[in-house]
Amino acid sequence: GKGNDLVELAEAAAALEPAETARLILGLRPRRARVLLTLLDDTPSLRVLQALDPSVSDVLLDRDQQARIAKIVAKLPVEEAADFLAESPRDLVEVTLEALGQPIDLVRALDHRNETAGALMRRRLVAAPLDWTIAQVIDKIREQSDRIDRLYAVYAIDSERRLHGYLKIRDLLLLAPETQVGDVMHRDTIMVSAGMDRAEVARIADRAQLPVLPVVDSELRLLGRVTTDELRAIDRAEAEEDMKLMSGLAPDSSAADGPLRIVPRRLPWLAAGLIGSGTAAFVVGSYEDALAKAAILASLIPIVMSMAGNAGIQASTVTVQAQASGGFWIGDLGGRILREIGGALLNGLIVGILVALAIVGIGEFIPIERPFDLGLTAGLTLVAVTTQAATIGALIPVLLERLGFDPAVATGVFITTSNDVMGVLIFFLIATAVYL
Amino acid sequence: GKGNDLVELAEAAAALEPAETARLILGLRPRRARVLLTLLDDTPSLRVLQALDPSVSDVLLDRDQQARIAKIVAKLPVEEAADFLAESPRDLVEVTLEALGQPIDLVRALDHRNETAGALMRRRLVAAPLDWTIAQVIDKIREQSDRIDRLYAVYAIDSERRLHGYLKIRDLLLLAPETQVGDVMHRDTIMVSAGMDRAEVARIADRAQLPVLPVVDSELRLLGRVTTDELRAIDRAEAEEDMKLMSGLAPDSSAADGPLRIVPRRLPWLAAGLIGSGTAAFVVGSYEDALAKAAILASLIPIVMSMAGNAGIQASTVTVQAQASGGFWIGDLGGRILREIGGALLNGLIVGILVALAIVGIGEFIPIERPFDLGLTAGLTLVAVTTQAATIGALIPVLLERLGFDPAVATGVFITTSNDVMGVLIFFLIATAVYL
Repeated sequence: GKGNDLVELAEAAAALEPAETARLILGLRPRRARVLLTLLDDTPSLRVLQALDPSVSDVLLDRDQQARIAKIVAKLPVEEAADFLAESPRDLVEVTLEALGQPIDLVRALDHRNETAGALMRRRLVAAPLDWTIAQVIDKIREQSDRIDRLYAVYAIDSERRLHGYLKIRDLLLLAPETQVGDVMHRDTIMVSAGMDRAEVARIADRAQLPVLPVVDSELRLLGRVTTDELRAIDRAEAEEDMKLMSGLAPDSSAADGPLRIVPRRLPWLAAGLIGSGTAAFVVGSYEDALAKAAILASLIPIVMSMAGNAGIQASTVTVQAQASGGFWIGDLGGRILREIGGALLNGLIVGILVALAIVGIGEFIPIERPFDLGLTAGLTLVAVTTQAATIGALIPVLLERLGFDPAVATGVFITTSNDVMGVLIFFLIATAVYL
Repeated sequence: GKGNDLVELAEAAAALEPAETARLILGLRPRRARVLLTLLDDTPSLRVLQALDPSVSDVLLDRDQQARIAKIVAKLPVEEAADFLAESPRDLVEVTLEALGQPIDLVRALDHRNETAGALMRRRLVAAPLDWTIAQVIDKIREQSDRIDRLYAVYAIDSERRLHGYLKIRDLLLLAPETQVGDVMHRDTIMVSAGMDRAEVARIADRAQLPVLPVVDSELRLLGRVTTDELRAIDRAEAEEDMKLMSGLAPDSSAADGPLRIVPRRLPWLAAGLIGSGTAAFVVGSYEDALAKAAILASLIPIVMSMAGNAGIQASTVTVQAQASGGFWIGDLGGRILREIGGALLNGLIVGILVALAIVGIGEFIPIERPFDLGLTAGLTLVAVTTQAATIGALIPVLLERLGFDPAVATGVFITTSNDVMGVLIFFLIATAVYL
C-alpha cells in the first residue's frame, strides 16, 4: 500500500545524501513528504531540513513535526542548534525555543544572527599567538584537523586575542619550523567588524579578492571569520532582495507564505500603486466629455499604459543593477540619459508606426472615425510616452540613491506612479490636439 | 588649469589600488576620465580597466583609447590577454583582435570563453603525479609560489593527466614527507566537465559545499579549476539575468548601451507587450457603446490594469525565485495556489473596499452617476482581478518550466499579456452586470 512504499522510500533515503533526499521531497505531496520525514532518524531528518529551502520546511513542518524537531534540537550543542535554527522558518524557531523554555544562551546566539558580519560569522578558525613557532602552529592544526574542514589562513593574535596579521597556508609549507609567527606574518590584514552590514562585507571581499575575511570586535579582537559559503549566500540574498523590492514584495516574502503573511508582505505595494493609478483615473475622468464624444479613445489606454510601464521598468532595471554592482558611472549620467532618450525614441517610433498602421488597417474592416488621425494620435503618444518613461526610469533610481533611499525599494512605486499618470496625461493632451 | 589638476590626480592615482582609481573614475565626467586614463602607465591602465565594470569601460574607451589598449594587450602572454579581453566590452575586443591581425591562438582562447565551466576555468593549479612523494609536492609548491596565489587542493594525476584524486592542503602538513600521493590521496573527487553549463557548476559547488572545483575533459584529463571568484561571478550573473529577463531586457543589456543597442535588446519585449495590450484594446473597443453611455468607466481602466499588473508580478517573482534557488516544492503546487488565492482575495478585498469607499466619497463632491453602483463595480472588479492575476502569476512560471522554457524569459510576456486582457475583460463583464 501507500504507507509501505514510503517505508521503502525512507530506507532508500537512508543511503542518500541529505541534499538528494531533499530533492526527492520536492517531488512529493506535503502529506507524503511529512510521513517520509517522520520515518527518518533524528540526525538525518535535521540534515534533510537543512538542505531544504526554509520556505519548504515552513510548509513541511506541521505542529507534530515541529515538536519532534524541537526535541532533536534540544540535544544539540548551543552553536549547532543556533546554526540550525538560524536557517529555519520562524515558526519552527518559535516552537523550538518555547519547548526548550527559552534558554538564554540559545536566544542570545540567535539574536546575534541578523544581517551583520557577526551574524554570518563562523567561529571555527585557527588562531596562533605571535610568539608561537611555525612548528607549534602545524601541531595545533594537526590536533584540530577533525574540527577544521577547510583552511585558508592562520590568524596571528596577541594575548588579548587582538588580530595583528595572518599567515597563508602556503607559508606553513615554505617557512622554517623554528621561525616565530610574529616575525614572518603578513601585516596587511583586511578585516571586517562584527557590526558591519552584510552587503558591505561582500563588497570588501570582492575588492580584496579574498575568499575568507576575519571578523573583529571594536577593539580589534578576533571573533571569527566569514567564509566563501557565507559570501555566496550574501550575494544571493542581496540579488533576491533587489528583485523582490522592485517587484513590490517585502524582502522576507517567500513561496511558502500563507494568506495572512501575503497581506502584510504585498498589500503596502499594491496600496502604493493606487496613488499612481488613482491619479491616472482622475486624469481620465477629467476627459469624460472627450471620451463621451470619442469612446474609441478609451481602447488606446491599455496600450499606452502597458508601453509606459514596460519601457520604464527596462530603463530602471538596468540602472538599479549597475548601482547594485557598484558599476554605475555617476559622472556619465548626462551621457546615459541621452543614450536612453535616443534608444527610447527609436523604440517608440517603431512601435508607434506599427500601432498607427494597425489602426489604419483595422479601419478598412471595422468602422473607425478618422482612422488616420487616430493612428497619428497613437503613434505620437507612444513615441512620447516611451521616451518619458525611459528617461524617468533611468533618473529615478539615481535621485533616490542621492537622497539616501534604497533605489530598489522606492523605484517600483515611483516609476509606476509616474508612468501611470504621465502616460494617460500625454495621451489625452495629444488626443485633444490631434483627434478631437 | 583643468589639465594640470588631472596630471596631479594621475600622480596621486599611481599610489592607489586599481580598484580605488576605478572608483575615482566613476565620479568624473567621461572626457576627464579619458584624460586621466591616458596619463596612467600601461600596466596600471589595464588594471584599472579590469577593476571597472565592462559597461563603464565601454563608454570610457573611445577610438584612440581602444587603439592604445590594443597595443598594450599585444605585449601580454596569450593567457593573460585572453583573461583581460574576456572581461572587456565587445568593441574593445574587436578593435584589439583587428589591430593584432586576428592571432589564431588568442581568438581560439577567447572563443572558448562562453557560458561553460571551461570558459570560467583558471588554468593555474597544482597537479602532482601519483608516484610523487609529499616532499616533492611541497617542493613544487615552493617553486611555483610566486605564480599561485591561493591554494585549496593539490590534484593527483597520472601520466596522461587524468584526474585520480586530490590532497587537501592540510594533508601536506600532516603527512610524512616520504609518503606517495597515490597512496594517501582522497578518491571522492567532485569534478565538472569543461562543457557543463555555468549554472550547473554553481549548483554542484553548492551541493558539495566546495570553494573550488577541478575541470576535466571528456576523458577525465585535468584542464583547470573553477575558483570561488568564478563561482560568485556565476551566482551574480544568473541572478542579474533572471531580473533582466523578467523586466523585459536581453541578458546582455547594460547601462552603457547606446540607442542602437537599446533597440535590439528591448524592442522584442515591448513588441511582445503589444500582444496583450492590443488584445485589451480590442476588448475595450468592443464596449465602445457602453463607454459612450458611461464614459466614467474609462477612468477605472488605469486602476484595474495597474492592480492586475502588480499582483501578477508579485506572485510570479516569488515563484521564479523559488525555482531559481532550487527550492520550489512542485509536490505542494496545489497548496501554493490555494495560499495565493487566499492572500489575493484578502488583498483584493482591502484595496477594493478602499477604492469603492473613495468613489462613493468623491461622489459627494463631484457629480458621478450612481456612485454606489460604480464603487461596487470597482470593488468587485479589484477582488476578481487581483485573484486571477495572482493565480496566473503563480502558475505560469511552473507551466513554462514544465514545457522546457526558462521561466524568467517567458514569464514577463505571458503574465502581462494575460493581465492586460483578463483585467479589462473582467472589468467590463462586471460593469455590464452591475453598472450599465
